[in-house]
Amino acid sequence: MSSFEGQPIKCRAAVAWEAGKPLSIEEIEAGEVRLKVVATGICHTDVYTLSGKDAEGRFPCILGHEGGCIVESVGEGVTSVRPGDHVIPLYTAECRECKFCKSGKTNLCSKVRATQGRGEMPDGTTRFSCNGKPIYHYMGTSTFSEYTVVCEVSCAKVDPTARLDRLCLLGCGIPTGWGAVNYTAKVEEGATVAVFGCGAIGLSVIQGAVAAKASRIIAIDVNPAKFEMARRFGATDFVNPRDFADQPIQQVIVDNYDGGVDYSFECSGGNVDVMRAALECCHKGWGTSVIISVAASGQEISTRPFQLVTGRVWKGSAFGGVKGRTQLPHFVDMYLGGQLNIDDYVTDEFSLDDIAKGLDAMHGPSCIRPVISMARD
Amino acid sequence: MSSFEGQPIKCRAAVAWEAGKPLSIEEIEAGEVRLKVVATGICHTDVYTLSGKDAEGRFPCILGHEGGCIVESVGEGVTSVRPGDHVIPLYTAECRECKFCKSGKTNLCSKVRATQGRGEMPDGTTRFSCNGKPIYHYMGTSTFSEYTVVCEVSCAKVDPTARLDRLCLLGCGIPTGWGAVNYTAKVEEGATVAVFGCGAIGLSVIQGAVAAKASRIIAIDVNPAKFEMARRFGATDFVNPRDFADQPIQQVIVDNYDGGVDYSFECSGGNVDVMRAALECCHKGWGTSVIISVAASGQEISTRPFQLVTGRVWKGSAFGGVKGRTQLPHFVDMYLGGQLNIDDYVTDEFSLDDIAKGLDAMHGPSCIRPVISMARD
Repeated sequence: MSSFEGQPIKCRAAVAWEAGKPLSIEEIEAGEVRLKVVATGICHTDVYTLSGKDAEGRFPCILGHEGGCIVESVGEGVTSVRPGDHVIPLYTAECRECKFCKSGKTNLCSKVRATQGRGEMPDGTTRFSCNGKPIYHYMGTSTFSEYTVVCEVSCAKVDPTARLDRLCLLGCGIPTGWGAVNYTAKVEEGATVAVFGCGAIGLSVIQGAVAAKASRIIAIDVNPAKFEMARRFGATDFVNPRDFADQPIQQVIVDNYDGGVDYSFECSGGNVDVMRAALECCHKGWGTSVIISVAASGQEISTRPFQLVTGRVWKGSAFGGVKGRTQLPHFVDMYLGGQLNIDDYVTDEFSLDDIAKGLDAMHGPSCIRPVISMARD
Repeated sequence: MSSFEGQPIKCRAAVAWEAGKPLSIEEIEAGEVRLKVVATGICHTDVYTLSGKDAEGRFPCILGHEGGCIVESVGEGVTSVRPGDHVIPLYTAECRECKFCKSGKTNLCSKVRATQGRGEMPDGTTRFSCNGKPIYHYMGTSTFSEYTVVCEVSCAKVDPTARLDRLCLLGCGIPTGWGAVNYTAKVEEGATVAVFGCGAIGLSVIQGAVAAKASRIIAIDVNPAKFEMARRFGATDFVNPRDFADQPIQQVIVDNYDGGVDYSFECSGGNVDVMRAALECCHKGWGTSVIISVAASGQEISTRPFQLVTGRVWKGSAFGGVKGRTQLPHFVDMYLGGQLNIDDYVTDEFSLDDIAKGLDAMHGPSCIRPVISMARD
């Protein structure tokens, strides 16, 4: 048991006071502390929200949604985790009671969605404050902090023998890509797969496609520096759209891969033109394209309806269709068993004090994921 | 055996000499006659091609793709049908040999697609001529003629006890809607279904949804005159978007049907705004929307990618996913067994000489299908 139990915690966190401004390391007060954050990844969504372009971003807030954490204490009525448990906080909760959870058709849980979207806990208030001013939560996780508070339904309890500064990447990027292949698209053995974008999500799609025994895995990126890592993760083919400047990339894929691929995955970081290309490079009659990344507000996807009438299917995936509390432990087991590579994603490591460097690192050409360790030196 | 066997036939047909001009009843010569057309339906696609808006329309041609026919004679190598058989010609062939047919994933057959699209038989020539001038085929069927020639793989042999002036509607409209529900979307018992547009296709979606035991079938049309027939076919709810002029119809459906429907079907005749509404009225997490109708050249569908990322699926259906030779006989059996209503679609009947009246009738508010009988008085 922590000495803080039942008492407010004062701790340090990277507070985003306003959009477009650097994060500020502040001493904050968390009224109902639950999770000690050991490490957090930085995802492009954090950067996007900080930029101010996310219309739903609410400031001041504590960003971060890829956390590797230890339960510090639990509030009343919490039964599924207890102090000392290792957990990955979930931005896609799993209450197992709502219409969505019970449907058996989706991982989108509605239990805490409304308040989470407003940066609040379910009672409509926040658990963070700084200099007496309330600080909003972010994606129900707020892992850019030494301690954070999340809902019980947002806690995936995992094997405590795995390194939390690696497991943190199971909070978003890795399950998102791997699950899109295996849960959303349900790629079958022998299928051909095209992956648009070879960042953390794209690499996870590649890993997922290897697990699904896809026959060909075509890595597509305008940055050929990404191909080495894509190859290491299992991609078999490599296409740079800039090598075919006179032809749309979808035409290149259709012409060179027997009419198009069975499955395509868009991991471009929200480029709606890439989303279209990913659909249109699919094989007539059955090709399925999955949109994974989040486009900027107001952006729209388009295609000729003929693309769908001739048998292509357009779908999307959030958190890879993964039911966090039920299925994330399986990802940890795969990691521990050597079937899931997490280590190679961690290209940069920083302390909380240097989180600004982590945000900068995201723009580097060979960066996959910076991981921020919370341990004070 | 017909007295024409092995010889050129002279017969009458409605020739479309040019786009935008009335059809002309001409005596034509068919060099390799196969099918005696007993009756043909008129579909909006025929009207659309005649208008000249179909970029792929090739003139002069003989339109028509909803035929009820009797085999008159067969060419060399034909084994699956013989003179006297009753057949429905297929604009979606089924060769059972191509990559598509063998995939088990689609009804789109590639065997004769390329030449069919150019209005030709597989050898690159036509079987129709008029005053020495070749006349192109249309959709591989050309049923606006007393006799027509089609490929063997385009012949669905059916029970000869059923009326061909009713079965002709199994050439397009009815399987297209019914199959979209049961083969493309695979609607399950208890699901909610929205149908956008209550013409022949929409009514067939309604019949298909009844067969699938949908719990609610919401008929949506801007013409309330369509609702009576929709009710007769099994719709349970009726929504006129014009009654909610201040709200998008997708919002009306989401608000009034528990977050949206499980399945929606777009049968609007090619309106891309309706295609979008049909997608967006689906329930988050699992709602599936199927585009059925064909939009005008150059038209595009759009939506926010968020609609897909939050679990909606956008697909399309051609000929209802029906494999014609294998599955159309089942539709005939359902008709004969009283499980499939065809009779009520036939709102107008004309002779070939009056086909112009049939085309006009298509624009009437309560017309579903005009049927043209080829019998000479």
